[in-house]
Formats: sequence, structure tokens, C-alpha cells
Amino acid sequence: MISSTGNARVKKIAEYAKKAKARKEDGVFIVEGIRMLREVPFDLLREVYVTKHFMENVSGDDRKLIDEISKSDGATLEEVTDDVMKKMADTQTPQGVLAIVRQNRWTLEDMLSGNALLLILENIQDPGNLGNMFRTGEGAGVTGIIMSSDMADVYNPKVVRSTMGAIFRVPFLYVDSIPEFTRKLHNEHGINCYAAHLKGKKNYDEIDYKKPSAFLIGNEGNGLTKEAADAASEYVLIPMLGKVESMNAATSAAILTFEAARQRRN
Amino acid sequence: MISSTGNARVKKIAEYAKKAKARKEDGVFIVEGIRMLREVPFDLLREVYVTKHFMENVSGDDRKLIDEISKSDGATLEEVTDDVMKKMADTQTPQGVLAIVRQNRWTLEDMLSGNALLLILENIQDPGNLGNMFRTGEGAGVTGIIMSSDMADVYNPKVVRSTMGAIFRVPFLYVDSIPEFTRKLHNEHGINCYAAHLKGKKNYDEIDYKKPSAFLIGNEGNGLTKEAADAASEYVLIPMLGKVESMNAATSAAILTFEAARQRRN
Repeated sequence: MISSTGNARVKKIAEYAKKAKARKEDGVFIVEGIRMLREVPFDLLREVYVTKHFMENVSGDDRKLIDEISKSDGATLEEVTDDVMKKMADTQTPQGVLAIVRQNRWTLEDMLSGNALLLILENIQDPGNLGNMFRTGEGAGVTGIIMSSDMADVYNPKVVRSTMGAIFRVPFLYVDSIPEFTRKLHNEHGINCYAAHLKGKKNYDEIDYKKPSAFLIGNEGNGLTKEAADAASEYVLIPMLGKVESMNAATSAAILTFEAARQRRN
Repeated sequence: MISSTGNARVKKIAEYAKKAKARKEDGVFIVEGIRMLREVPFDLLREVYVTKHFMENVSGDDRKLIDEISKSDGATLEEVTDDVMKKMADTQTPQGVLAIVRQNRWTLEDMLSGNALLLILENIQDPGNLGNMFRTGEGAGVTGIIMSSDMADVYNPKVVRSTMGAIFRVPFLYVDSIPEFTRKLHNEHGINCYAAHLKGKKNYDEIDYKKPSAFLIGNEGNGLTKEAADAASEYVLIPMLGKVESMNAATSAAILTFEAARQRRN
């Protein structure tokens, strides 16, 4: 039982909630709430913290999961006071259970088995947008997500929550140069890389995505850099009616990947 | 020049930023920033407040717009101190220009001229989601948005910002009963109303949306109520791969309305 908010471990965990650097150094991140805990692959679980109130109320399959964790060699289970939970958690009203989870390591090969469908994200800044792209991407059958190193951290608690568990299932990679990596995907792996772009000559639904494909999506405010757009095999246009000048980044990703999914079903 | 944050008008405007009730009583809402000000139909503008710094830096077409406002009979232009602007604005870093805008009144007829494509939203709570549905909806050619009266207020400053101006162009209505209104749309106006639902037997892309159509979208956490889903002409399924159980509400709306737009183009 940890009851002091001054406890070194508690302080470290509060740091994980706030700082990408601390998470990166220790190769971990935070998962909050029973719903997200259910999604964590068991071998990635390291520490689970629970409140008394949570333990008194957990039942059914969730009870079984907690029992399994308490008996496992790989993960620890420890009770903490409400105050300690509040200190560790990122949310205003913590849900009584919080886990420290090992960061997964993926490789490009993880993304290219089968018929690749990739998202290449450049400088996405909004955590909700990023998390949503994981969630939507998984639903559309995306086989991997490539991200620029200047982006929102995928292990930010708000991103983790918004993925609804997809963070554990969709392989992802950070790369230093989106243009270089895009060219590599095309030249070495035969993947057609499409940039959603207002200068696209073809509508996005006039292209065949049954072959290995990737979609380049740019920053919320500025779109893709010229260098990244130039590295694409082709520009595609999402035609917009009214006076709309652009789509939200996650919305563009949804429209494109679900068009690919539609074609691949038919 | 208003320099006192205790000024009655300033206090009233701060109330508009925070309270739906105050906005409703006076039939107005707040628009912040020059980018959004450009989108406001001139006849809806009532009061525009600017800081000294803004006036010293505004140029080009924006300067012309401000000059036009200062000369107009319908709208007032007044300078305020930075402190007063901060007090009135909803944002942490106000952009130096803020307008009080009259709420628009739409009717169902505004939505049904031409080939109707409607969104029927039930109990959407997230302002960003709601704003995004206006923006995406306009891009897809949505002719109107019907909302349940228990939803996020469309005039909430965060919703207004997220619409990127679509709030001025997409007709919308609040209704007391979504099930009743849905039946009315179908029975009296011949509009097919589709509920995005996990029990859908047909995939969403197997349906003909070239005829007048509407999509029912439910609350972020709970989906559609049984009553609303029952009122639909048909359930449609957005097939999801992986372990994804549901899509974000705005994402579902984007996938459905852009499929309708795709069919209507072809």
C-alpha cells in the first residue's frame, strides 16, 4: 500500500503522465481505467496500481484479470490511496486503476506483411486527432502508421485514451525524414504513396487502392510540407463542396482509408 | 474605447462566451479572430471589438472589412484594452478581434430545397466533434443538420471555431424529439433515414444515397437510443476490421456523408 504522494515511484509515474522524455527514457507509458487495461497485451504489463474503492467494486472478467495480474511474475499489483492515484493519473477524475506498460517496438516488416495499407503522418499536433487516426485506421485495416519525429507523442495519455486500444494493435514507427521514408517505401517496397492535396488532379475515389498503398496526411494547420508532398507518387484530391477549404486531418485519413477498405472488400 | 473589465457590456459578453442560456436569451453568439470574422455574413454582425494592437497591424482585405464595419449602420466597431479583450474572449490568447453575431434562424424548408442530404445528431456532447461535423458536412454537401435539444450548444465558442465557418452556411435546427422528427422526415418528406448501427445488415456502401437521404448519428459513448434507431428507415453497418468496436461520431458522419457525395458525383 502506497499512501504518500511524496513516494519516489509515485513522483516518477506522475512524470510519465506529463513528460514524453521520461516515458522514452524508461521505455514505458501509462494506461488508465479498466476499459483500456483490458486491451493491454499481458506481456507488456509492468505495474498496476489500484485504489481500495476499485478493488471493492471490480467484478466478473475484470476481477479475473486483476487476479491474474496479482499472481503473475511479469507484473506487480499494488494498492494506493485516492490521493496517490490522483497524483499519478493524468485525468481529473481517475478511474481507480492505472498501469505502467512497456512501449512496444515495431519494425517496418511488421507493417508490410500482407497487402500494406499505411498512414504516413507529418507533424500532427492534436492528441485527439492522432489517437482517432489509430482507432479509425485499425477499423479500416491500416497495417501501419509512420510518424514524423516532431509530432505529438503517441504515448501521451490523451493519445493513448483516444486510440481506444488501437495503440496496442496497429504497428507504428517514428522516422526522421518523411520525404526520405516515403521514397524508400515506394522505391524499395513498391508501395504507392498518395498525398491528400488540393492540387490533386484525380479525385481520391478514382484510384485503385487494392495494391499496397499509403496515404500522406499533413499538419492540421499547414498541411503537408512541400518536401513531403513532392515525395508522394501522386496527389489525390478530396473534393469539397461549399466554401470548405480543408478537412480536419483525422477526417481526411478516415475518408481515404475507408475508401481503400471499401475497394478491398469489393 | 472600453477600458474597464467591470463595464456592464463587457460582463455580458463574457457571459455569452460561457453560458448557452445568455446567448439564447439575446439571440447572439461570439466569433473570435479575423479568420472567422471574414466568414460572418455582414447582415448578422452586431458589434465588433478590437484591440489597439490589432488595429495597428490589420491590413489588406482585412483592413477593408474593418473599415466597412466602422462605416456600417448595422454593426458597431469599438476599441477595447487588452485586459478587456481577455475578459470577453473564450480563448487564453485572444486574437485582438471579437464579434457579437446574431443567431441565424433556419427552417426545415431551407434544408430540403434540392436533393436533401441531412445529418440527424442525437446527444453529441463533444464541441470539437460537433464543429467538425459541420465542417465535414459542408464539404460533403450536407444540406442541413438536425440536432436533439440535449446536445452541445452549436453556439459554444469551441464549436463555432471548429466549424471553420460552416456554422454560417449549413442550415441547422434543434428538435425536441429525434424519433418523431425522423419519422416525419420519412413519412412527410420522403427522406430515407439511415442509422449507423452495429446491427446493420447492409454495409453502408451498398445503399443508394442519390435519393434524398439522412444519416442518424448517436452519442459518443452510448450511440443512438433505441427509440431513435427504431425510427430509422434502415440500419447501415460501417464494417470495422481489427478489434475496433465503434467509430468516433464525427468519423462515422464523415465516412457516411462522403460515401453519399461519392455516389452523387458518379
